[in-house]
Amino acid sequence: MTASRLLTLQEVSSHNTPTDAWIVVNGKVYDVTEFMLEHPGGAEAILQYAGKDASKAYNEVHALSIIETQLQERLIGNVCETPEQNKPNEPHLEQTKKLILEDSKPPLATIINTYDFEEVASKTVSKKTWAFYSSAATDLITRDLNKASYDRIFFRPRVLRNVTKVDTQTTMLGQKMSLPLFVAPAAMAKMIHPEGEKALARGVTNQGIIQCVSNNASFPLGEIISSAPQNHPFFFQLYVNKDRKKSEKLMKDITALDGIKAIFVTVDAPAAGKREADEKVAADESLTTPMGGSKARNDRKGGGLGRTMGQYVDPSLTWNDIPWLRSITSLPIGLKGIQTAADAKIAMEYGIDAIMLSNHGGRSLDTSPPAIFILLELHKTYPEVFTAMEIYIDGGIRRGTDILKALCLGAKAVGLGRPFLYALNYGHEGVEHLVEILRDELETSMRMVGITNLAQAHPGLVNTLGVDHLIPGGEGHQYAKQRPVAKL
Amino acid sequence: MTASRLLTLQEVSSHNTPTDAWIVVNGKVYDVTEFMLEHPGGAEAILQYAGKDASKAYNEVHALSIIETQLQERLIGNVCETPEQNKPNEPHLEQTKKLILEDSKPPLATIINTYDFEEVASKTVSKKTWAFYSSAATDLITRDLNKASYDRIFFRPRVLRNVTKVDTQTTMLGQKMSLPLFVAPAAMAKMIHPEGEKALARGVTNQGIIQCVSNNASFPLGEIISSAPQNHPFFFQLYVNKDRKKSEKLMKDITALDGIKAIFVTVDAPAAGKREADEKVAADESLTTPMGGSKARNDRKGGGLGRTMGQYVDPSLTWNDIPWLRSITSLPIGLKGIQTAADAKIAMEYGIDAIMLSNHGGRSLDTSPPAIFILLELHKTYPEVFTAMEIYIDGGIRRGTDILKALCLGAKAVGLGRPFLYALNYGHEGVEHLVEILRDELETSMRMVGITNLAQAHPGLVNTLGVDHLIPGGEGHQYAKQRPVAKL
Amino acid sequence: MTASRLLTLQEVSSHNTPTDAWIVVNGKVYDVTEFMLEHPGGAEAILQYAGKDASKAYNEVHALSIIETQLQERLIGNVCETPEQNKPNEPHLEQTKKLILEDSKPPLATIINTYDFEEVASKTVSKKTWAFYSSAATDLITRDLNKASYDRIFFRPRVLRNVTKVDTQTTMLGQKMSLPLFVAPAAMAKMIHPEGEKALARGVTNQGIIQCVSNNASFPLGEIISSAPQNHPFFFQLYVNKDRKKSEKLMKDITALDGIKAIFVTVDAPAAGKREADEKVAADESLTTPMGGSKARNDRKGGGLGRTMGQYVDPSLTWNDIPWLRSITSLPIGLKGIQTAADAKIAMEYGIDAIMLSNHGGRSLDTSPPAIFILLELHKTYPEVFTAMEIYIDGGIRRGTDILKALCLGAKAVGLGRPFLYALNYGHEGVEHLVEILRDELETSMRMVGITNLAQAHPGLVNTLGVDHLIPGGEGHQYAKQRPVAKL
Amino acid sequence: MTASRLLTLQEVSSHNTPTDAWIVVNGKVYDVTEFMLEHPGGAEAILQYAGKDASKAYNEVHALSIIETQLQERLIGNVCETPEQNKPNEPHLEQTKKLILEDSKPPLATIINTYDFEEVASKTVSKKTWAFYSSAATDLITRDLNKASYDRIFFRPRVLRNVTKVDTQTTMLGQKMSLPLFVAPAAMAKMIHPEGEKALARGVTNQGIIQCVSNNASFPLGEIISSAPQNHPFFFQLYVNKDRKKSEKLMKDITALDGIKAIFVTVDAPAAGKREADEKVAADESLTTPMGGSKARNDRKGGGLGRTMGQYVDPSLTWNDIPWLRSITSLPIGLKGIQTAADAKIAMEYGIDAIMLSNHGGRSLDTSPPAIFILLELHKTYPEVFTAMEIYIDGGIRRGTDILKALCLGAKAVGLGRPFLYALNYGHEGVEHLVEILRDELETSMRMVGITNLAQAHPGLVNTLGVDHLIPGGEGHQYAKQRPVAKL
Repeated sequence: MTASRLLTLQEVSSHNTPTDAWIVVNGKVYDVTEFMLEHPGGAEAILQYAGKDASKAYNEVHALSIIETQLQERLIGNVCETPEQNKPNEPHLEQTKKLILEDSKPPLATIINTYDFEEVASKTVSKKTWAFYSSAATDLITRDLNKASYDRIFFRPRVLRNVTKVDTQTTMLGQKMSLPLFVAPAAMAKMIHPEGEKALARGVTNQGIIQCVSNNASFPLGEIISSAPQNHPFFFQLYVNKDRKKSEKLMKDITALDGIKAIFVTVDAPAAGKREADEKVAADESLTTPMGGSKARNDRKGGGLGRTMGQYVDPSLTWNDIPWLRSITSLPIGLKGIQTAADAKIAMEYGIDAIMLSNHGGRSLDTSPPAIFILLELHKTYPEVFTAMEIYIDGGIRRGTDILKALCLGAKAVGLGRPFLYALNYGHEGVEHLVEILRDELETSMRMVGITNLAQAHPGLVNTLGVDHLIPGGEGHQYAKQRPVAKL
Repeated sequence: MTASRLLTLQEVSSHNTPTDAWIVVNGKVYDVTEFMLEHPGGAEAILQYAGKDASKAYNEVHALSIIETQLQERLIGNVCETPEQNKPNEPHLEQTKKLILEDSKPPLATIINTYDFEEVASKTVSKKTWAFYSSAATDLITRDLNKASYDRIFFRPRVLRNVTKVDTQTTMLGQKMSLPLFVAPAAMAKMIHPEGEKALARGVTNQGIIQCVSNNASFPLGEIISSAPQNHPFFFQLYVNKDRKKSEKLMKDITALDGIKAIFVTVDAPAAGKREADEKVAADESLTTPMGGSKARNDRKGGGLGRTMGQYVDPSLTWNDIPWLRSITSLPIGLKGIQTAADAKIAMEYGIDAIMLSNHGGRSLDTSPPAIFILLELHKTYPEVFTAMEIYIDGGIRRGTDILKALCLGAKAVGLGRPFLYALNYGHEGVEHLVEILRDELETSMRMVGITNLAQAHPGLVNTLGVDHLIPGGEGHQYAKQRPVAKL
Repeated sequence: MTASRLLTLQEVSSHNTPTDAWIVVNGKVYDVTEFMLEHPGGAEAILQYAGKDASKAYNEVHALSIIETQLQERLIGNVCETPEQNKPNEPHLEQTKKLILEDSKPPLATIINTYDFEEVASKTVSKKTWAFYSSAATDLITRDLNKASYDRIFFRPRVLRNVTKVDTQTTMLGQKMSLPLFVAPAAMAKMIHPEGEKALARGVTNQGIIQCVSNNASFPLGEIISSAPQNHPFFFQLYVNKDRKKSEKLMKDITALDGIKAIFVTVDAPAAGKREADEKVAADESLTTPMGGSKARNDRKGGGLGRTMGQYVDPSLTWNDIPWLRSITSLPIGLKGIQTAADAKIAMEYGIDAIMLSNHGGRSLDTSPPAIFILLELHKTYPEVFTAMEIYIDGGIRRGTDILKALCLGAKAVGLGRPFLYALNYGHEGVEHLVEILRDELETSMRMVGITNLAQAHPGLVNTLGVDHLIPGGEGHQYAKQRPVAKL
Repeated sequence: MTASRLLTLQEVSSHNTPTDAWIVVNGKVYDVTEFMLEHPGGAEAILQYAGKDASKAYNEVHALSIIETQLQERLIGNVCETPEQNKPNEPHLEQTKKLILEDSKPPLATIINTYDFEEVASKTVSKKTWAFYSSAATDLITRDLNKASYDRIFFRPRVLRNVTKVDTQTTMLGQKMSLPLFVAPAAMAKMIHPEGEKALARGVTNQGIIQCVSNNASFPLGEIISSAPQNHPFFFQLYVNKDRKKSEKLMKDITALDGIKAIFVTVDAPAAGKREADEKVAADESLTTPMGGSKARNDRKGGGLGRTMGQYVDPSLTWNDIPWLRSITSLPIGLKGIQTAADAKIAMEYGIDAIMLSNHGGRSLDTSPPAIFILLELHKTYPEVFTAMEIYIDGGIRRGTDILKALCLGAKAVGLGRPFLYALNYGHEGVEHLVEILRDELETSMRMVGITNLAQAHPGLVNTLGVDHLIPGGEGHQYAKQRPVAKL
């Protein structure tokens, strides 16, 4: 069916029942009666717009192309007027209110570090976006300690080395990068910029680094990858679905996309973390993630977007499922969210290709340890892991000095999450600017400690005594003999 | 005598002497001339109302049933007008003034953690209630460290376990509970809600957990127990009375009540703690505890309700009295307030059934150690205690993560005191809501560390290095050889 | 000469030259022409009042009796009018201005701890008095750590002891005291109350404790002692004078006074500490200490009263002078201001009778260690000192818990300085009230840890692990071999 | 050409092109067409003033004598009117605005410590000056820890020593000093006082201490030295120039100047530190350092004066260049900026004469360790270095107590940077006053710990346990085996 027909909004408005539902999206009218039932976010999310214009709600999370692809056969026609709620930039709900009146962003050139981006975001994005991005589990102890733990590590700078030229190149799983830096997977980038993950992709590929795309991205994976130059490598973060068939289908689609070079299975979020700031701001119930397929909702626990988004995640995933994972993809497999040296060793024993030490930005379990502690625990207990797998780390990295510390202690590359989202507030230019800042800080730090390439980074260049007393010395510590970990 | 007679308040007002004293309570006139002398709170507490309406003062702490039972033979008649001071919600004294003008509570659904309950209470309850509940000994170091010490313990979360179903059931002294959680004994619950301990009972029994009723409860024990479904277990906190006969009588009465399943003898308050906030707000001298029988008063040390309430407590109680305690009850006996590993060991040697590690919420002795330190001290010095007795713990527990940490370190169950009082501000619904919140937080924490039932909790799941340097390694430490503890 | 003559102020005003100087003090006219030259505070201090009424300046620091004794032969007569500046309570100089307008003290009964006294003093005494009393050396690190170090020591409370009766009696050098508490020597008590050290004496003797009178007291020693019941013991703090003859004379006078039972030689102030708050408020140049004989002055370093008061102190005093000290008094000799275990040991070898571990309230050298650290150092290195001498301690003690901690760790008694001065703001009643508060706090603390007399205090009742890592393990520590201490 | 000709400003204004450029400086007109091309700060810095009066911009950084020497042959004549922008004290740009309105300095006599000087400077100097002086690398962790680390070191004061006379004299590389104190090299002193380094020289030489002149001083070295009495020793801080010939020329000139007694080669700044406060205030683009030859500029990273000033520094300098350094000067050579014990040992092996432990005031690399940590590391690992070379230290020293601690731990002398700049706000009198304050504090501290000359300072007088846990025990620590340091 082609869209030759012109309709008024009034005409559309009578098709507002479960058995006869039309909606308007971006000036086009679709019959969604059947589609509702297959909608990943549930029929309700659509039904509430039956007979109405759903453009604004749709555009906040979905890419234009999705509806055009999926519903082209259900196109009824075009509306002959632009509905009021379709106007761009029109705040329509409490959760889109700016945090303060001053919502004009300062010029990008005045931003000189990650904190500047964060401060601007805190003042200019919607309440819900700020709550969703900045929140973390309960008392925020882990979130804040993530950064503070780097601040308690000293450098041991060596002098009188020729540091004229500094080379920051490295690889992750064989993929070349201009910096030991990747975009940690973070959901729903469209909440801060209309181009979302696509702008992120454009920004980081221009700078030669890798993006690990979230399973809960706002855009279809193919679109995100298409935003980058051909052959630029991406990684994909997988949440295994309770319906394993869906994960299998997803893996098949991904393998078909040439850009994805590795899969990172999230293992630190078998349940939803309790992010209280996120719960306390009402959710916009029209939001749905295209890939994850969860729908925002408000319930008796609050309006937590993160919580409702994680509904489809399979909490039954175990080490026993590694063979199944191998069977559904030929890509290298990493585990994201390893939080003990013991589990790192198990991952090694299972032949995992890489691990990402992470506590999910402090969003999963409060008082889980900073990932840098796990890196130190590995040195103390299972140093063999460093040669068996590549080890990445995220959480609390805000400075070039933080990057260099993690690398000195054996990380192959580091991920940043929130800083990239806050930079995206300025579109892809913001993202590029952020990478430039970090590149400059890293190069300066390398020169200051007296090294010229990343292979020269080693533990002797840092003094970790400020945190060493907190690192357990084996599987357990003085009172705690770790019980044996059954492989089954 | 039946209440056929109608009297005016003016008529009552002439009966206002020690030898001819009438009072009005809830519209009924009683002759209290003789009763005054037997009043647990002393004659004075009644005499000040002789010839007057005492309803408001009475209702704040006594259950209706008490006076009807005890004074039914002294009923003179009914008053024919409602006295002004009997109006509900009428503030009549400085100490009932709200802390701030905003005294309307936010809807219960917006409360998502224990701190929300606390904040609402701080703004909406009377000055005296807030002072009495929130205060602790002198500089509040122990009170605040109780919570902070949990925050310095890290988890060591294990990943890739099947955590689909989580079971939080456990037992205390054989009694089944849906959660490893009990209501720590806290005095005078009626100060925050008219239904006091009865509403508490209703709330927690609906949720399947156990209440340890305070010796200083606002209601008679029988009434509290009757608020719960039959056969629901309760515990009772005993302060041994200077007049031991009274304690013997109390034990006999309690044994007669089918609901009480264990007695917890308080051992951490042989004297009154100095709670300065409580002292600085004038006491309402009409308050009397029905069970403890102490009367609030103002003296040269201040208006401390906690201090005057503890007057009857016997400071001469020693280990030698354990046989006597056994002789007056056949119920299991626990000790509440153990604060050293050495005393835990003695308790074990005396065949005590359970111990509650507690510093009385920091209310007894400032700079006494957080109870979690004692749990760690036991691991270091007398691990055999863990298998000999059940060990409970309270103080500073505000999160599901705190509960799980205590359990990993060997506690069988944990108690919360103030949080239940603050939740009671919303009646039994508040209490139930609090338990739901904690249940949800505990389940989430269990999933995040990778366990599915409480038997799987073990020390290897926590990293206590942040506090281990503060745990003494034996009976004494480097300079301190602990003197032998004579059993006499 | 008797005072039969009546003079006008105008008549007096012409006698205002170095060779003909009269002054008016409390309505009496004296010829001070010759006396000026012998004045301990220097001629200038008097000359500035030549021809004028000096009553206010005089009364702030001198006792009435001094001038009547010393100048009775130079009495010219009486003035026939009361000069304006003689009115009591009349502020006359910038430095007597109250810190805030609210200068009415709250009723004594509302004061329930040492901090209440301090807060009232901070708001109601003159700027100069507050600066002089509250100030300490440079950055106040030691002053504040004095208290904080007690807060980092935990109790290890023992339960189920019979604590019905608690006995707080002890002795210092054989003198009986109702509490293990003495008034540490503090200069110029008259600055906060007109009765100064006399009111202090009255207050503490009523309570059965001992006052160590400062060498820089505002009143003559005899007067202070006369304020107490006969035979009540006092101690005396000696600053050895550069003019050793003066110290010899002073010792002779003191031996003649029956009340003094021991001499404490100050050894921690061979130079003036830099107390910046004191320097920043202009000195009242009319102030002179009667015993020390120093005169307040303003110079290029500021208006520091403490600094100018210490001018006469002999910085050449060494261990070699101990025999000389023994030769000039038969009283027991203590050393006040021992700050290392090494010096404690030397004191023992010299046969000193007692030592007072002290850093002068943090007023001498900033970042000198809290005295409680030295007590711990002694346990670690020279425990034999505890049996050889009595050891006292001051600095930072503000609570009964602090007293008990010091006693558990081996101190025989503790001194408080500033708290007694702040209590003196309320005269001797304030002083008595302070002692009552501390007695009550100490008794409560003893009961709570399970002891009934001070002989039962022992190191096993405290957990000092919170500060043990700061205690050096011998004369030096890992990098520092202490050089041998030559006895000469 | 002599200046016989009189010109109007209007006449000058037409000579404003690259091929015909005149400027006015202090009433004289110069043809700078050719000179521009040789200008160390670049032609642009001059061209912007072509046809205009450049006096103000010139005077802020250049000494009068420079232009008279270099351009005397290009003098055209005198202007016949005083141009408006030449008026002294006229603020002309945003960056010269005072931080607050109150810009009148309190009298010098009221300044009693280094912090007073700092506070006055913060309120009275231009925004750019404050930003340039006070800023440090990124998060200021090292800058602030520099001071805080001294505060965590305790004294162990010894009593009863004869401290009547105290001698603070010492030497640096054989040069006598009245105090163990030198002026650490700090750039651009003219920004806070028109006499800049010359006033500094006058102040410190009057006080008998040594100034280490910055390579980036505002005045020619000869002029600075001439400000001091003949034969007074100076040191010179060298940044080796990318154009090594320039450094060779500089060394030749310096050797010709009799006053310079040693060269300190800066090794801790091979790249520009990221000083964000400095970057955030726009640079005055007319500023040029006479010796370093860098020109202030604003670019996409900000307006950092420190960054642009360091452009000429050679990052290729290595240990291999030591022979070359020896070949271009016969003066003793020190290294400024040693930050590990390992590099101190290498310096010793290369026969370096002295090292200055420094982290550049926290301005180079954030989280580099406080220099006092390196002093402690040397005790632990290479104590032989103390006897092989003189060791100096700077960073965070603000008190006489800090000086004494550094000396007890083996430093021969200490440097202060920012405090001297802030004191210079009051001209040479301020500088002298600062030295007097520090002399008085040092003498007091020496008396209080019981020593009378600096040879008596030793590690046993300090307790460093508060920081010892942060000192690495060898080239690496538990996880980190330091890789061998190749000499090439």
